[in-house]
Amino acid sequence: MKLSDRGNAMPASPIRRLTPLADAAKAKGIKVFHLNIGQPDITTPPEMLEAVKAFSDPVLSYGPSAGLNETREAMAKYLRGIGVDVSANHVLVTQGGSEAILFAMAAICDPGDEIIVFEPFYTNYSGFACMLGVNLRAVQTKVEDGYHLPPVAQIEAKITPKTKAILWSSPGNPTGAVFTRQEVTALVELAKKHGLYAISDEAYREFCYDGHVATCVLDVAAELGCSDRAILIDSISKRFSACGARIGFLVTKNEELLAAILRFGQARLCPPTLEQYAATVGYSVIDKYVPPTIDEYRRRRDRVMEGLAKIPGATCAVPEGAFYVQPRLPVGDADAFAQWLLTDFQKDGKTVMVAPGNGFYATEGAGAEEVRIAYVLKEEDLQIAMDLLVEAIKQWNQR
Amino acid sequence: MKLSDRGNAMPASPIRRLTPLADAAKAKGIKVFHLNIGQPDITTPPEMLEAVKAFSDPVLSYGPSAGLNETREAMAKYLRGIGVDVSANHVLVTQGGSEAILFAMAAICDPGDEIIVFEPFYTNYSGFACMLGVNLRAVQTKVEDGYHLPPVAQIEAKITPKTKAILWSSPGNPTGAVFTRQEVTALVELAKKHGLYAISDEAYREFCYDGHVATCVLDVAAELGCSDRAILIDSISKRFSACGARIGFLVTKNEELLAAILRFGQARLCPPTLEQYAATVGYSVIDKYVPPTIDEYRRRRDRVMEGLAKIPGATCAVPEGAFYVQPRLPVGDADAFAQWLLTDFQKDGKTVMVAPGNGFYATEGAGAEEVRIAYVLKEEDLQIAMDLLVEAIKQWNQR
Repeated sequence: MKLSDRGNAMPASPIRRLTPLADAAKAKGIKVFHLNIGQPDITTPPEMLEAVKAFSDPVLSYGPSAGLNETREAMAKYLRGIGVDVSANHVLVTQGGSEAILFAMAAICDPGDEIIVFEPFYTNYSGFACMLGVNLRAVQTKVEDGYHLPPVAQIEAKITPKTKAILWSSPGNPTGAVFTRQEVTALVELAKKHGLYAISDEAYREFCYDGHVATCVLDVAAELGCSDRAILIDSISKRFSACGARIGFLVTKNEELLAAILRFGQARLCPPTLEQYAATVGYSVIDKYVPPTIDEYRRRRDRVMEGLAKIPGATCAVPEGAFYVQPRLPVGDADAFAQWLLTDFQKDGKTVMVAPGNGFYATEGAGAEEVRIAYVLKEEDLQIAMDLLVEAIKQWNQR
Repeated sequence: MKLSDRGNAMPASPIRRLTPLADAAKAKGIKVFHLNIGQPDITTPPEMLEAVKAFSDPVLSYGPSAGLNETREAMAKYLRGIGVDVSANHVLVTQGGSEAILFAMAAICDPGDEIIVFEPFYTNYSGFACMLGVNLRAVQTKVEDGYHLPPVAQIEAKITPKTKAILWSSPGNPTGAVFTRQEVTALVELAKKHGLYAISDEAYREFCYDGHVATCVLDVAAELGCSDRAILIDSISKRFSACGARIGFLVTKNEELLAAILRFGQARLCPPTLEQYAATVGYSVIDKYVPPTIDEYRRRRDRVMEGLAKIPGATCAVPEGAFYVQPRLPVGDADAFAQWLLTDFQKDGKTVMVAPGNGFYATEGAGAEEVRIAYVLKEEDLQIAMDLLVEAIKQWNQR
């Protein structure tokens, strides 16, 4: 039985495809430290889970396709709080940030159309593009530049008549780069100049360190008088350590676009009801919850950087935000190394799982020596995990 | 700013697109009886909501992309209980039946490929097909035949080199038809003969009346020795009156296909975590919960049929299953009538909302005199709603 070309081409997630090997290691009694997936061990605000438990309707019924009004209002209010001029009717609640990306791509691209991305990029952009027949055109950024943008001319050179949008994440997954306001402005100006959409994935907005500040695409687009070009992708998954809630949101002031996206939303009926109550409450405790979380991630980042500093030959940009680092490691084939960590390595019954870096590139062969490390474990675990990594690289290179 | 062709072509849901008119009517103080949407007022099993409330993890974390093991096992066990030979590793938990349909279509169809459906069909098949660039080729079924299948030759005539699958729902939404085992066998044989997939949407499996029995595609395909062609779409939404949970599932014994679908699943990370615990518990109380629910729907169906019998010139097939009826009403333009019900009609401050029938057809102009009625309200409300409909048709024809 034949599958579709897109079914065959659909990439396995580099974050998850080694999971069977991890399961096998665990079955042998080995403890696996998961640095492969952005699943924080930080406690979800208990108020959010209480909100779910307070649900007292006798029927768990469909909500509106655009999301519950109170949830959309909470999200809009939150954005206004960071200086972005939006109202609830610009917000559509989605099934995770994932669905927001899928809907945005579908509403602006037909099969064969192109979107410009900056590699290494969030790997699942590839998956949604593949599902929709959209081609990603990747502009490479380099670890040596801290994964910041290359000169605008290099980005502009990738634009073709098929290009419909520029898509980026900042704070960046997997790069940890926080684009400056100048960089975001350059991207939105480019979109304006060439009649493209500017899609900005800001799921990690708050997680910035050392004085770096995330810039919202809606804010810049308003300043440049092209709000109709800006699409914000957002999510509660990381902000509230609530990845399993599957609540994201898409925000745009382009009414025609939002109407089309709502029609996609109608087809899937609605986002999950219970978690929207949780999301609403999350935004009411954000001022209490997020600042200590930022401090925690900064400390974790520092632990990871200390560990990486012990690896001779590793090249690494200090993450300015998010909770990932994408170092180049002296391991040759990082994909083989990541597998070997699960199949052959262990020290005192422990090993570590990382995501092979090549999965975050569209360019064949790029990122072959890189891995993505998510610093989502508590400091002491992270310390152990990094020590394991340092030891593993030594053993790998002595084989 | 241009949208994609698919963004422009994406149909608004006929079930939901009149919602703004209903909201306006409510704002004027009019009570609207919702027969437009399959949102039952039947209580969700309290055990399911208790399972959510028993969640005690400090972190609401990602689950596996294929769904929680215990949830997949509960679904497989349920299917084995109705005689279908499957195990948990044939089951993928999805974000509603919606996502199961989307993933199935994406894994077997590229843009321009075709799927055969039987109109009137579940309207959102159109939406997912549009999103993916898939063309639905509709075989018409008729109210006079109880929306049962036409001769096989008529179906076969729709098969082209682009055809990848035959898709049906039975018990049928919006038709209420329950295909006989002979009919399902004919469809699977046709799929086998022409190298197609057989996709069967069985979300309403238990809701059969008057001795009709739903036939599972997996069972028939096993009998015909072509299990690799069968894809089952299922959902907990209707079975447990838990539409807001957004938990569906896809089942196939075609391992290569399931692997491709899992890769789509990895891109969106996972289905919502909390509701999977609810779903697991739902299947443990199904024997207690479902039989009285079937009786309730049968009584409601009878109330609706009594109401329709009072409309001279209405043509209607007695629903054999599900909780919909798609009558042809003597109103000329049923779409205009459905709008008028919300904008101009009221009796004692009450009106009724129905879904225009044309939205359930792919053929231009078809179903223009039909509406879909969901009998999801308690008997006394249904009685009032049907009396309102009878009265409204009188007034509409006397304008």
